[in-house]
Amino acid sequence: MRAGATKAEVEHVVERLTERGYGANVSGSEVTVIGAIGVLDDDKARLADQLQALPAVDRVMPVLKRFKLASREFQPDRTVVTVRGVRIGDGALTVMAGPCAVESEEQLMTVARAVKAAGARVLRGGAYKPRTSPYDFQGMGREGLELLAAARDETGLPVVSEVLDPHDVEVCARFVDILQIGARNMQNYALLKEVGRSGHPVLLKRGGMYPTIENWMLCAEYVLREGNRQVILCERGLPVPGGETATRNVLDISAVAVVHGTSHLPVVVDPSHGTGKASYVATMALAAAAAGADGLMVEVHPDPEHALSDGPQSVTPAQFATLMERVRAVSAAVRG
Amino acid sequence: MRAGATKAEVEHVVERLTERGYGANVSGSEVTVIGAIGVLDDDKARLADQLQALPAVDRVMPVLKRFKLASREFQPDRTVVTVRGVRIGDGALTVMAGPCAVESEEQLMTVARAVKAAGARVLRGGAYKPRTSPYDFQGMGREGLELLAAARDETGLPVVSEVLDPHDVEVCARFVDILQIGARNMQNYALLKEVGRSGHPVLLKRGGMYPTIENWMLCAEYVLREGNRQVILCERGLPVPGGETATRNVLDISAVAVVHGTSHLPVVVDPSHGTGKASYVATMALAAAAAGADGLMVEVHPDPEHALSDGPQSVTPAQFATLMERVRAVSAAVRG
Amino acid sequence: MRAGATKAEVEHVVERLTERGYGANVSGSEVTVIGAIGVLDDDKARLADQLQALPAVDRVMPVLKRFKLASREFQPDRTVVTVRGVRIGDGALTVMAGPCAVESEEQLMTVARAVKAAGARVLRGGAYKPRTSPYDFQGMGREGLELLAAARDETGLPVVSEVLDPHDVEVCARFVDILQIGARNMQNYALLKEVGRSGHPVLLKRGGMYPTIENWMLCAEYVLREGNRQVILCERGLPVPGGETATRNVLDISAVAVVHGTSHLPVVVDPSHGTGKASYVATMALAAAAAGADGLMVEVHPDPEHALSDGPQSVTPAQFATLMERVRAVSAAVRG
Amino acid sequence: MRAGATKAEVEHVVERLTERGYGANVSGSEVTVIGAIGVLDDDKARLADQLQALPAVDRVMPVLKRFKLASREFQPDRTVVTVRGVRIGDGALTVMAGPCAVESEEQLMTVARAVKAAGARVLRGGAYKPRTSPYDFQGMGREGLELLAAARDETGLPVVSEVLDPHDVEVCARFVDILQIGARNMQNYALLKEVGRSGHPVLLKRGGMYPTIENWMLCAEYVLREGNRQVILCERGLPVPGGETATRNVLDISAVAVVHGTSHLPVVVDPSHGTGKASYVATMALAAAAAGADGLMVEVHPDPEHALSDGPQSVTPAQFATLMERVRAVSAAVRG
Repeated sequence: MRAGATKAEVEHVVERLTERGYGANVSGSEVTVIGAIGVLDDDKARLADQLQALPAVDRVMPVLKRFKLASREFQPDRTVVTVRGVRIGDGALTVMAGPCAVESEEQLMTVARAVKAAGARVLRGGAYKPRTSPYDFQGMGREGLELLAAARDETGLPVVSEVLDPHDVEVCARFVDILQIGARNMQNYALLKEVGRSGHPVLLKRGGMYPTIENWMLCAEYVLREGNRQVILCERGLPVPGGETATRNVLDISAVAVVHGTSHLPVVVDPSHGTGKASYVATMALAAAAAGADGLMVEVHPDPEHALSDGPQSVTPAQFATLMERVRAVSAAVRG
Repeated sequence: MRAGATKAEVEHVVERLTERGYGANVSGSEVTVIGAIGVLDDDKARLADQLQALPAVDRVMPVLKRFKLASREFQPDRTVVTVRGVRIGDGALTVMAGPCAVESEEQLMTVARAVKAAGARVLRGGAYKPRTSPYDFQGMGREGLELLAAARDETGLPVVSEVLDPHDVEVCARFVDILQIGARNMQNYALLKEVGRSGHPVLLKRGGMYPTIENWMLCAEYVLREGNRQVILCERGLPVPGGETATRNVLDISAVAVVHGTSHLPVVVDPSHGTGKASYVATMALAAAAAGADGLMVEVHPDPEHALSDGPQSVTPAQFATLMERVRAVSAAVRG
Repeated sequence: MRAGATKAEVEHVVERLTERGYGANVSGSEVTVIGAIGVLDDDKARLADQLQALPAVDRVMPVLKRFKLASREFQPDRTVVTVRGVRIGDGALTVMAGPCAVESEEQLMTVARAVKAAGARVLRGGAYKPRTSPYDFQGMGREGLELLAAARDETGLPVVSEVLDPHDVEVCARFVDILQIGARNMQNYALLKEVGRSGHPVLLKRGGMYPTIENWMLCAEYVLREGNRQVILCERGLPVPGGETATRNVLDISAVAVVHGTSHLPVVVDPSHGTGKASYVATMALAAAAAGADGLMVEVHPDPEHALSDGPQSVTPAQFATLMERVRAVSAAVRG
Repeated sequence: MRAGATKAEVEHVVERLTERGYGANVSGSEVTVIGAIGVLDDDKARLADQLQALPAVDRVMPVLKRFKLASREFQPDRTVVTVRGVRIGDGALTVMAGPCAVESEEQLMTVARAVKAAGARVLRGGAYKPRTSPYDFQGMGREGLELLAAARDETGLPVVSEVLDPHDVEVCARFVDILQIGARNMQNYALLKEVGRSGHPVLLKRGGMYPTIENWMLCAEYVLREGNRQVILCERGLPVPGGETATRNVLDISAVAVVHGTSHLPVVVDPSHGTGKASYVATMALAAAAAGADGLMVEVHPDPEHALSDGPQSVTPAQFATLMERVRAVSAAVRG
């Protein structure tokens, strides 16, 4: 309560709690603190808002985490997502790699073979691209999905690709193995529910307007609550401070530790979007491996200076092979 | 180019430009600067990325605005969006008001009559609610739309309501007059294209992961490019600095001046989400009026402490009536 | 406490409180909440940190404001700072104006006379300039102070100027009437203590690495605690979102409402730094006036394109005169 | 230039350049671009501001880095700072460790002996503490410095400690080996000049209101320009997104790669402030080691729950010893 709240104002809050069947614990010396006891999950946010609307209430402070199905309290054992035999979250480091956008059969197959040879276990590639400007290349669409499926058939690598539109979830699920929700769409709840209902594994990037860890978990909760437990989280960088031009985002490596402490879901790191510059990708891949990430997601292009999107942050197949060797060494050192 | 770039590296860039039919202007003393001349709109982002991928290139700096249809250069005359006779963008201040969420016929009609009496010209009300947690009230859905249409029929106020899912655009367009794109969905390109194709007036809130003015304009461009020129922009606050609890967002009033300087589209201000606290709503409404905003969007609830969402930032009908009086005085003073 | 905290862990926290003479209120159903009662002001942060260091403690949530002397609870009556007969905080709008940096006697006197004629009540001008680069103009130093004092003698306008170095507080206090602490130095505690001890009126800009309202108030508290009650707060904009180039900062007009609600200190708004562009200064000055700011601080230069610093955000004397007329109209409308 | 700039407006800019002896390169098709050639270092910011003040000028885009002495172009060989025989920046990982604040001889000596035994090469400890609130423990001051000097004499570890006030630089330089500039003081130019003049090694933390890499380098430039080339950079985390409570800051590990690419100065990482939570310190220390940081700075306290400051982020001597073992393994793996 605010300093100077009257006895009647305190009682009003207590009544609001008891009329809903909750307990109330009143304490405090300088100011009065009222603890709400036994509040139902579905009622928490609403109750908090309603109490906050009272002028005599200074602040409503939620004591409990707002996510449940994603929490370690709900499921102490770590989730392992298995896709065509590839396990993500079992303690090893699983590398996903491929081009930002699928551009042609030749481009995709060149990269797919190269990243497989270097040790990647999952192939990434964008068919539907979220672009800041409507004038930019929007991806090959369904044709890109078909190329991805063909690449999977040849290489045996399962495929992850972004879906932007609830209308496209079905067709994407038909061709790809993991549905990616991009950072801009983290809080696109219609899309989250749709991929949740698809039952397909989901890779959920951190982002949105309020990219806190709790909000990310609540977005995972949207998927989990549809009965889909195959969720992989992906850290890909937060907006830089105003005026920064050195990197495109700030990759929050500590998110790996936070997620591992609070959730049972696996978390991978994307050093390509995380930095926006090819020359920093290897450094951040090593950092993520040292931090114990469950995986990496790396953009590889055979010819970055002719890439149709994200060339500046794509490494070449040769650079990727070197990166993989170094990542393996760090991974071995840190995992003992 | 980077300091120390070789002649061959400079020539490589020039060749990349000329092979595409563009001009190249090479200058500079300490470092070499290459100007690309005549680049096509559709090729700008791609070319920038491709050049940036070259190791000898230090930075690619776009000279021109990336948006076109939304710019004053494209259309010097200001856009006036007309909805059932209400004009937005004609120099006057148009107030939109109503509950955060439609909760019941009684709640909606009480507010609708009150805000009309106080001088509001458009009724707002959420039927589909984007909520941070899947456990929170998600709105009344189609039933809410029907109540909004009924309220419009009774009061004559045109209605604005948020659409979250491309699947719902058609039904929303059937019942409401202005389709609102919420801040979390600013960069939801699938949704932007869908509301663009609907031909219905669109209110586009600023937000997303990278809420710059240019990105906002590019999102408007997604709608405009579908042939839909009825776009209203809405400033509703940027994320606060880390640790801030005094307000929920920072309302960027200067966006009004920036938009008026760079675009022909009308811009309204939402002081309710912009602050998150009812006690600051009137102050910020006055500030927006003084800054020359084309409109306001204000959340009003008959009983904030029982609201199903956003109670803390909703004003009562009585507070709204007072606010309107003060806003009119400021508006008269500033518009002369 | 964390979910699953043992009885012994709860008791350990209770003991830590009682051994210090504080009360403990234990409550909660799903999780245990322990209220600390009667904690001394000087012990609050330390105790919070110490409890937070316990693994079984989930979060320590401070219930009370951490500032005291700056709060309305401590002093319900509003502070009015009086400088050579000019009152700041008495309900009227006091305009401070002048060049970013003092460059010459002629430049300063031209501006001083012009802003006085237009209705400014305080003259601003920088003698010591905090510049991002050591290669930029660092101000005229003591010579600038002398020019300011001369301008005050001629015009009768009291003078405000920034001090950067504790070593310079004494000399600045000799020549100027209000000592300004710039945004970059908000959390420069050595400087805050020194201006506090000077007994001179202080204008404290909001800024620093963590520019929350509470941190700003705590910085005011550093000054107040030295026995110096003459503190004016100044909002001058927060860093923009990453990638934004339209404005230099985001001017947080709502800070006026928050400060007026929480503190007795006067608060002025600086639309020049707040936007960084001359063409937006008038708009934001009007917005600040409508929000009830106690004053404005505006940069004016006779020839912005030859200014030695901050030319792009300086208005000309003629533009300032127009701005003043419009500000007066809004101020009259809002103050009734 | 803005679209539609007249020939006279273009000529005006060209004249402004030529009257100062600079070249002008005019190009462009849709818009005119004017390249300024040969601009002197000292004139760059001023000229940019002055041109930006012209209404016909759209944007001034600096082509060159604004820092010089800190750049690799100026000094291709990496700087190695040597302090009492300990080398920082020579390719190895140098660990600095110790308590946040010096609290007593016993506390300091316990930690000093423990961190030395575990492999730390530099002892850290705060005597002057920058605290958000004036009511918090402000450090032992000079007595703390004396204890640090005594600890150095016994252990042989050189000592790093923060200085807050230009008045204290001399006394700090007498007792400690490396003068630390804290994150809140990064842009405290008076202090930077003073430690520059001291000739003592300086550890400069990244921070301030605008914590970009370029601004950090410009702050290093303030020290270097006083003739003091012994500068160590320290990354300690950026402010978290609004609403985040999981960590205190976001540790930007990519800063290591950026600094190594752009500057010759050594860069160390502080995972204690970088996360604010002891349980994440080891993870981020490993990440920093994998990224090739020149050193770490870690807070260690014998009894975190009784620490007078920063207990929640301090590890115990036993935890530190384990961390050191794991860091050594990663460091060996990555450095080959």
